[in-house]
Amino acid sequence: MPPAREPAVLYEAARRGERAALGRLLSLVERGGPAARQVGRLTFPDGQGDHVVGITGAPGAGKSTLTDRLISEVRAVLEVPVGVLAIDPSSPFSGGAILGDRIRMQGHALDPKVFVRSMATRGHLGGLALAAPEAIRVLAACGYPVVLVETVGVGQVEVEVAGAADTTVVVVNPGWGDAVQAAKAGLLEIADVFAVNKSDRPGAEETRRDLENMLDMNMHMGAWRPPVLPCVAATGEGVPALWAAVVDHRSHLESSGELQERRARRLLDELGRILVASIEEQLTAVRAGSAWDTVTRELIERRKDPYQVADELLAGA
Amino acid sequence: MPPAREPAVLYEAARRGERAALGRLLSLVERGGPAARQVGRLTFPDGQGDHVVGITGAPGAGKSTLTDRLISEVRAVLEVPVGVLAIDPSSPFSGGAILGDRIRMQGHALDPKVFVRSMATRGHLGGLALAAPEAIRVLAACGYPVVLVETVGVGQVEVEVAGAADTTVVVVNPGWGDAVQAAKAGLLEIADVFAVNKSDRPGAEETRRDLENMLDMNMHMGAWRPPVLPCVAATGEGVPALWAAVVDHRSHLESSGELQERRARRLLDELGRILVASIEEQLTAVRAGSAWDTVTRELIERRKDPYQVADELLAGA
Repeated sequence: MPPAREPAVLYEAARRGERAALGRLLSLVERGGPAARQVGRLTFPDGQGDHVVGITGAPGAGKSTLTDRLISEVRAVLEVPVGVLAIDPSSPFSGGAILGDRIRMQGHALDPKVFVRSMATRGHLGGLALAAPEAIRVLAACGYPVVLVETVGVGQVEVEVAGAADTTVVVVNPGWGDAVQAAKAGLLEIADVFAVNKSDRPGAEETRRDLENMLDMNMHMGAWRPPVLPCVAATGEGVPALWAAVVDHRSHLESSGELQERRARRLLDELGRILVASIEEQLTAVRAGSAWDTVTRELIERRKDPYQVADELLAGA
Repeated sequence: MPPAREPAVLYEAARRGERAALGRLLSLVERGGPAARQVGRLTFPDGQGDHVVGITGAPGAGKSTLTDRLISEVRAVLEVPVGVLAIDPSSPFSGGAILGDRIRMQGHALDPKVFVRSMATRGHLGGLALAAPEAIRVLAACGYPVVLVETVGVGQVEVEVAGAADTTVVVVNPGWGDAVQAAKAGLLEIADVFAVNKSDRPGAEETRRDLENMLDMNMHMGAWRPPVLPCVAATGEGVPALWAAVVDHRSHLESSGELQERRARRLLDELGRILVASIEEQLTAVRAGSAWDTVTRELIERRKDPYQVADELLAGA
């Protein structure tokens, strides 16, 4: 077996189009630590990309099928390479094994301009929020200017990860309560475009109306009102109009100056997470340090109080 | 208005029995920051206490009424002063206004050996986990060797706060599903004693049996099997037996050596939280520092990457 390649070597290979090298870079980012940091520094200068589109919504809403359709749409309309990140905070699987295979089966396997990758947390939620913007940057820097980010499930992590997107598509289904659920999960605030998927089923019109009503009440919205668009991902119906709305939103962001603002805010959020991670590493070092056993014994024997012990540990770190 | 007294002066007054000074110390602890830390250091040497009893369970289970009955029981049986902390992570109220008044109305108002205090989070969950052991120590050091800690609701915070107790009483009610709910909420693991409150209602026997069955399946239990005791807090029925079980558990902890272990583990947990809080303060200082504006501008203009910026900020902190 040849020795593992350095991040810088991998990066050059990935930029020349070597898919295995790209996959390896994404694994490094997913794993975190010093190598991820090195990849982060390498890809930053060229990693801004053109358009990051988040696709989120409840489990079973049809996000994967819709993502698959959107890949075809990007390839047909924009004719640019498209990268896809499927993020599942609860899955023990990663590296593209599950979703990657599924999507590859649906016809993008032979398209060298499509790169699909699943990411999981490996049990560390904060890690995903840290890794997602890095992974997007890796794809953008390696020739995939459009990146689709599909998140599985609806929760704080998904909302956080969706924060890494320029445009967020929230996928709901017809049926009583789905619009309300979306609102409760905080998706009304993050949606730039609503997709009412499976809109050939009963109740699609009611769901659309519910969403429009909730948008009417949402007074703190800016100039962009999220359009609510029906589609049937399984057949592709409505997907071109959905993608057109996503592209419209991108234009709106650019012309209003909001794109700059969003990206600046994202970088500051990311800086915050990096600071927290750096400081957590410091904490880990304290716990692994030589003083730990001695001073915690003094604490347990109540010869020193916890504040005193904390000071001593941090001073020695 | 006289100037605010120093923590050391308050502490001396509280130890002489001045209730207003005790209340003020608890407010300092609740508020956090340097003064809380000062109080923490002052009370540590004498703050170990004899018995900390947690009372937890779903909202509406009758925890407050039961706590009130247990106060009477402690006063009658042990004849020692008893401190009570009612912890409500979701309440904007604190300082004893709500629960304090209610319990005082029920007959302990004139008993100088009972001190009741509500604590809320003021929007900071981590703060409560940090403040609860400190507040218990304040009460113990100021002459309340038995402290009852009632938590409102069932959630991660409650489980964490219950971790500050020597003995945890989990309160459930008769009715299908309550035992299952308790198990789901992780209460099976933290319970030392189960109280089936409102046991004059139908279904009490089934709830008891469900709990016993679940305890049978819980193979990782140690030598102590949590007893399941019926009671009616509203009338006081069963409360003496419940308190006797709590005292039994205390004896078991002592004779088995587990009391030492639990208290050591608690101190280490607390140290961990203090370390995290110290480090968070460091982060706040970085954000407030003079370099922040300059380097974040360089980041937003993409002249520096976030890792570089994080390093510079932490180096200058």
